[in-house]
Amino acid sequence: MKHEKRIDPWGTADIDDYRNLFDEFGIKPFDKFREKLSDSRYIRRGIVFGHRDFERIMECIEGNKKFVMMTGLMPSGKFHLGHKIVADQIIWYQGIGAEIFLCSADLEAYAVRGIDLETARRITIDEYLTNYVALGLTKKNLTFWFQSDYVVPYYRFRDMLTRKVTLNELKAIYGSLTPGKILSVLTQSADILHPQLPEFLGATPTVVPVGTDQDPHMRLTRDLAARFQSEFKLILPSSTYHKFMRGLQGGKMSSSEPKSYIALTDDPEVVMKKIMNSKTGGRATIREHREKGGIPERCMVYDLFLYHLIDDDEELENIYRDCRSGDNVCGECKAVCSEIMIKFLKEHQRRRKRSERIVEKILEK
Amino acid sequence: MKHEKRIDPWGTADIDDYRNLFDEFGIKPFDKFREKLSDSRYIRRGIVFGHRDFERIMECIEGNKKFVMMTGLMPSGKFHLGHKIVADQIIWYQGIGAEIFLCSADLEAYAVRGIDLETARRITIDEYLTNYVALGLTKKNLTFWFQSDYVVPYYRFRDMLTRKVTLNELKAIYGSLTPGKILSVLTQSADILHPQLPEFLGATPTVVPVGTDQDPHMRLTRDLAARFQSEFKLILPSSTYHKFMRGLQGGKMSSSEPKSYIALTDDPEVVMKKIMNSKTGGRATIREHREKGGIPERCMVYDLFLYHLIDDDEELENIYRDCRSGDNVCGECKAVCSEIMIKFLKEHQRRRKRSERIVEKILEK
Repeated sequence: MKHEKRIDPWGTADIDDYRNLFDEFGIKPFDKFREKLSDSRYIRRGIVFGHRDFERIMECIEGNKKFVMMTGLMPSGKFHLGHKIVADQIIWYQGIGAEIFLCSADLEAYAVRGIDLETARRITIDEYLTNYVALGLTKKNLTFWFQSDYVVPYYRFRDMLTRKVTLNELKAIYGSLTPGKILSVLTQSADILHPQLPEFLGATPTVVPVGTDQDPHMRLTRDLAARFQSEFKLILPSSTYHKFMRGLQGGKMSSSEPKSYIALTDDPEVVMKKIMNSKTGGRATIREHREKGGIPERCMVYDLFLYHLIDDDEELENIYRDCRSGDNVCGECKAVCSEIMIKFLKEHQRRRKRSERIVEKILEK
Repeated sequence: MKHEKRIDPWGTADIDDYRNLFDEFGIKPFDKFREKLSDSRYIRRGIVFGHRDFERIMECIEGNKKFVMMTGLMPSGKFHLGHKIVADQIIWYQGIGAEIFLCSADLEAYAVRGIDLETARRITIDEYLTNYVALGLTKKNLTFWFQSDYVVPYYRFRDMLTRKVTLNELKAIYGSLTPGKILSVLTQSADILHPQLPEFLGATPTVVPVGTDQDPHMRLTRDLAARFQSEFKLILPSSTYHKFMRGLQGGKMSSSEPKSYIALTDDPEVVMKKIMNSKTGGRATIREHREKGGIPERCMVYDLFLYHLIDDDEELENIYRDCRSGDNVCGECKAVCSEIMIKFLKEHQRRRKRSERIVEKILEK
């Protein structure tokens, strides 16, 4: 099926690209939860498209029972709109009453990316926590930790994991290994599972929202949880899978390529330029565009509307239609996009300034 | 050189067996320190026969400067006379003013030997600490820890080590690897080096008394210390090398073979039998023994005198002569050995009962 033939303002048909995840790896489509959880824009628009064992989390949500949402941040580079997808999910889960466990993977940054712990700490605070808070994160039900600055039962548990996994298993999953990679993998599993230790919450349904590239890690962590049944009662963690934002130029959105992303601390002028230079779904000439209509599925500007800028579904649908019909040309969309984006960023950057005290409180032990 | 030709009551000539350690691996003979430190029986008798960088420790001893003696215990099986060689050295170093860092390798026991942490804790206390204290260990200048129950800077440092070593290096040193082995190796290096972290004593000369089988680990740890010069000021740890006691039957002294060792909690009756069944340096017949004389270098009973039971050098020399001349036959030596051993064990086992309170204090944080 070609993109041109799809009529789908939410891009949920893109899910076909992920079909092999369902067939080969046992990830399940998220469809059946969509209606009930439609207040989440990412769920409603199919950006969160897959899951493992989310039924268990749905039960907790509907039965008002305790559950954990666990996620980590990698303290390297700028916080951009790609990262905002996870941030928004954290905040959404916090809003519906989840216990939030939020981890700065500073040890992984140190061991695998060569970022020293002090720098990782600074990036965590300036780039991540401050933006999270400005986006709406509060201290409520929030446990935040640095991997390098945590308590004994967590470390002990991570060390215990070494007995339940072989080097060959790790090689099969992660390819060539280094001591740093092995450490990072075990730390990630401990990050996900330790909230269930007796010293923390005990056995508790846990959901981890991830990109599909992280699924092998979820599978390993679920295996490890199963292998620990005789020592601890651990519930296999659930996961949800969301799409990645593409970069503004059409490739990968990457922290190492500033043109590919909009950072939440970018200057409005810079942002305007980035949007103007974005890849769109427009035709080669305006005449052709008017005749054939644009292709919003291939448009990075449309992605910005879809993921971040336009909450109202009807409004989004109009943009989609006006593009496909050729009524709107790219310059018009870019102008609209810039205006909304800059308004959002200015407000966000104001909020950042007021976030400092809350960030301090989050960092308090 | 054949054993028979040697006239050496201390067995220091055995050092020839270790000659390749000097030539190939750069371990230095301990001879030059022997006279100055002759109050240590193991040093005086050449049981401690080699070192790396012990000059640095000698300077501290002579200059009355602070230094660390670090060692670990593996909490598996019975505490026997082989383990007593390290125990006596700990107590000797404590006596001359060293800061003692003593570690229970419970994580290694868990990750590599499949011993659960509770069992490891019990063995640490009942088999090791209680015997150490009964042998003379006190709380003075003593830092004791379980690998699984320690503080953040120690764990953080261990994790940082992952960046300074490759998997191939570890493979070259330790052969086939498992996640548990990798963990154990890094933990051992952190055990040795962490007393020098700013959160502990800062850069301090450190000596680790080990068997030669542990030398590869000392080399790795010294390499790691060198690689961390930009992050921390770490002084390369010194080491001394001591001989192992052979088993009573002539093979290896091993916790998994009760006939090979005398445990410090063995019943006197059992001990008597073990000594009576020991391999000796006696000849096939009493007549041949009287004619040719015995070979104390091949005698496990003589080892017991040499390592543990006879402090007075002249007395030991007499036993040696009377064996070589054929004046003493094995039955006589065994009887003398049994008597001294049982007297020692009875007194030791009485002391164990009085050790409980001191052990409790050592375990207090």
